Amino acid sequence: MGFLTCLVDALGSDIVTTDPALLEPWQSDWRGLYRGTAQALVRPRTTAEVSTCLRLCNAAQVPVVPRGGNTGLCGGATPESAAKAGAGGRQLSVILSLDRMNAVRGVDTIANVITAEAGCILADLQRIASEAERLLPLSLAAEGSCQLGGNLSTNAGGVNVVRYGMTRELVLGVEAVLPNGEIFEGLRTLRKDNTGYDLKQLLIGAEGTLGIITAASLRLYPRNGVRTVVLAAVEAPQQALDLYSLVFKRCGQRVQAFEYFTHACLELVLREVDGLRAPFSEAHDGYVLLELADTADEGALIALVEDVVGQALEDGLCRDAAMSTTLAQLAAFWRLREEISEAQKRDGPHLKHDVSVPIEALPAFLDAVGARLSHTVPDLRLFVFGHFGDGNLHYNVSRPAGAPSDFFTQAAPADSPADAATGSTNSTRPDSKGDLVTDAVLDEVARFNGSISAEHGIGQLKRSHFLRHKSALEQRLMRDIKTLFDPNGIMNPGKLL
Amino acid sequence: MGFLTCLVDALGSDIVTTDPALLEPWQSDWRGLYRGTAQALVRPRTTAEVSTCLRLCNAAQVPVVPRGGNTGLCGGATPESAAKAGAGGRQLSVILSLDRMNAVRGVDTIANVITAEAGCILADLQRIASEAERLLPLSLAAEGSCQLGGNLSTNAGGVNVVRYGMTRELVLGVEAVLPNGEIFEGLRTLRKDNTGYDLKQLLIGAEGTLGIITAASLRLYPRNGVRTVVLAAVEAPQQALDLYSLVFKRCGQRVQAFEYFTHACLELVLREVDGLRAPFSEAHDGYVLLELADTADEGALIALVEDVVGQALEDGLCRDAAMSTTLAQLAAFWRLREEISEAQKRDGPHLKHDVSVPIEALPAFLDAVGARLSHTVPDLRLFVFGHFGDGNLHYNVSRPAGAPSDFFTQAAPADSPADAATGSTNSTRPDSKGDLVTDAVLDEVARFNGSISAEHGIGQLKRSHFLRHKSALEQRLMRDIKTLFDPNGIMNPGKLL
Repeated sequence: MGFLTCLVDALGSDIVTTDPALLEPWQSDWRGLYRGTAQALVRPRTTAEVSTCLRLCNAAQVPVVPRGGNTGLCGGATPESAAKAGAGGRQLSVILSLDRMNAVRGVDTIANVITAEAGCILADLQRIASEAERLLPLSLAAEGSCQLGGNLSTNAGGVNVVRYGMTRELVLGVEAVLPNGEIFEGLRTLRKDNTGYDLKQLLIGAEGTLGIITAASLRLYPRNGVRTVVLAAVEAPQQALDLYSLVFKRCGQRVQAFEYFTHACLELVLREVDGLRAPFSEAHDGYVLLELADTADEGALIALVEDVVGQALEDGLCRDAAMSTTLAQLAAFWRLREEISEAQKRDGPHLKHDVSVPIEALPAFLDAVGARLSHTVPDLRLFVFGHFGDGNLHYNVSRPAGAPSDFFTQAAPADSPADAATGSTNSTRPDSKGDLVTDAVLDEVARFNGSISAEHGIGQLKRSHFLRHKSALEQRLMRDIKTLFDPNGIMNPGKLL
Repeated sequence: MGFLTCLVDALGSDIVTTDPALLEPWQSDWRGLYRGTAQALVRPRTTAEVSTCLRLCNAAQVPVVPRGGNTGLCGGATPESAAKAGAGGRQLSVILSLDRMNAVRGVDTIANVITAEAGCILADLQRIASEAERLLPLSLAAEGSCQLGGNLSTNAGGVNVVRYGMTRELVLGVEAVLPNGEIFEGLRTLRKDNTGYDLKQLLIGAEGTLGIITAASLRLYPRNGVRTVVLAAVEAPQQALDLYSLVFKRCGQRVQAFEYFTHACLELVLREVDGLRAPFSEAHDGYVLLELADTADEGALIALVEDVVGQALEDGLCRDAAMSTTLAQLAAFWRLREEISEAQKRDGPHLKHDVSVPIEALPAFLDAVGARLSHTVPDLRLFVFGHFGDGNLHYNVSRPAGAPSDFFTQAAPADSPADAATGSTNSTRPDSKGDLVTDAVLDEVARFNGSISAEHGIGQLKRSHFLRHKSALEQRLMRDIKTLFDPNGIMNPGKLL
């Protein structure tokens, strides 16, 4: 009996789809940048069905691509192309979607834990927590459609990391299926458990290369009853950094978000998105969006923020500041930051770089990359924004004004030798102008001891840069761990490692 | 050339000690419960010297026992006995003490990171952070002599976990030496870095079985300028739990500690330790010590705490409450909690159990263990205290009043069959009354989905219980990871796995 027949036999045709027409929408990522060919789509309803699927795939050495909400930016949930699979001696993949495993198994307001299956939409979990007067602090642009399993597998970040940490720091327990079908029963809710290696840490952020997370227990926090947002104009990144130091020291764990965007971002968002207004009459170099939140006592929070902003203005840590006085204004301030991605999309093709450097190095890093890019490819338009308080910037680059929309896919100039372009001796020659720019940005990141992927992960997009920048020892240990968990290499081949 | 000659040759006699008289004080743990025989003591000054030592030990298959401040409670840093090593086909160990690697490599008040070597004393690091107006929140009884490397290797907990998490959650980066001498250069300071498996998570809490941590970068928090402590009398654990819910919801991340102790603990501490006073005129079932802390604004903090305590009294969530009004009073309240261990030590031999259960299960768990122990061994004196807000209790047991000091080492009664005593089918017959008690406590912990070691680790002490309670799958994965990192099995044999 062939593999597909076995699979349908074991799981039923309601769960296994092989019709090419029905498979078609599942073969690519949401941005249409990656496209592959899977032989089947499996949509299990239970952990036992996930186990059955993996057991059969493992026995037949059929690759499995776990799929959450398909909101990733790195092609991590898209199957390989037939050509690539064939070249690697692999069969076509099975896409395993967790979307039907979307039960909330429990919300405990004494232990402050929510336990939910991998297919739950993040925004639904936020809402359920909020209805229980608790906060699930994970919050990111894709929250309306991304799924918990994907959040865990990519160790998602977002806007509240400065206060509550990455997804990893919210996870108390994990249930997962290993490649051979074994079920890892790690759905604990303990705050403290020092009994050997913390195995769940390997599954978190593994991008589906070690197994499939089917459910997780996450910490909840007290719901913040009061919030306030300040938009501060700064004359340079160094000023934003000084402002961060003051705010961190004085406001402590009330700092819910410390975001940053340049004036170029503001201009773009005002041009491309309707219904937004310039927050200041003058133009400034950049802007900090600071959110403070607390469980209670709006008066005390406002008094604190007024005092801190007053001190910042007096000490020259910002040039101007506006504080939200209504919820509508708070939302309007946030839209200036949150619509930047959409505005840039409307502006046309661009390069995204999700990088981090040690926080204190942000100003020097920004100077260095800007200077380098001005030589590498002149007249680029830089749109730099992100989670400044985490040292995490989205260093996005758009084509020069008036350049054709295929600008970044054009061949790199013949006089752009690999070494000069990248400062690295083991680099390959960049193929396109886009490669040239990305190599330059990521090499600067490495030079500042930063991360080439702060929160988006590696997937297919950054695999070559991962191989170039990660130390040989770490790569070897990761490959060894991969082999240990997945000796047949069925889990998400072509991603990450 | 023999192994020891090689070692002295490579590192020098200042670093390698083989004189039995000089080795003597290093052969046992501080409580004198564990004793072993090492053939040499190595006290390197640099990471390179640690690497040299491990490379030579690995080549000669000589076991290595990493040693920090020797404050552990589970025998994790004590060498095996000659008999045990011989029975396992192993040579005598080398103790590798990190005490000379005690440099602080940097304190960054912009990035809010301290980078320090493994041999630094925790209290020194706390002080250095405080002098820089920052908080290193890791705080535990042994802080005056425990070392950072040990804190990381055991994923230390302590009194502030309820707010800041375990040691693991404070670690941004780790430098370590692997068993073959390779140096893991992971001393990063990034808040966000999603580039593959988070390998440092394996080294944290591994109890020195995978390699030796030589330095780490830890997050710092804003220093809390204002603190207040409330001592609340409760009539039952359920009331303490209800109080916790209220406090969590209303005070959020100001909750610095939420500790608990029974009236038996209070009586003991008042009897055994001089200079302490009863906090209430009446006796109560138990007491909660609640600390709130914030960066600033003492008035707001006191107003909040008064309001919350008022509500707790009104809603019947505590029977009485006293609030610290001076620093001296705050310290006196803390001493009632912190001197319990010392008081119990003065009272004589006892059994320590460092366990956790899901927070909401604490009252039922306490009922169940109490009832069970009253049948298992009548008239035991129970001293239960600990980090209630983390679900973590030190469930300590002293001998019946008037019983001889060897009570717990006496043979278990002949009519205590293994199954009745433990409720488990794979248990071995308990040897002593102490084993009988410990089996009963830990089996109840397992029944409540708890952890048999919340913060102390496994070491030698809980190895048999670890093997009994940890799932077969998790044990197999841990052993496989151990083999991957340490194929010759030289790292801390006889501990944990």
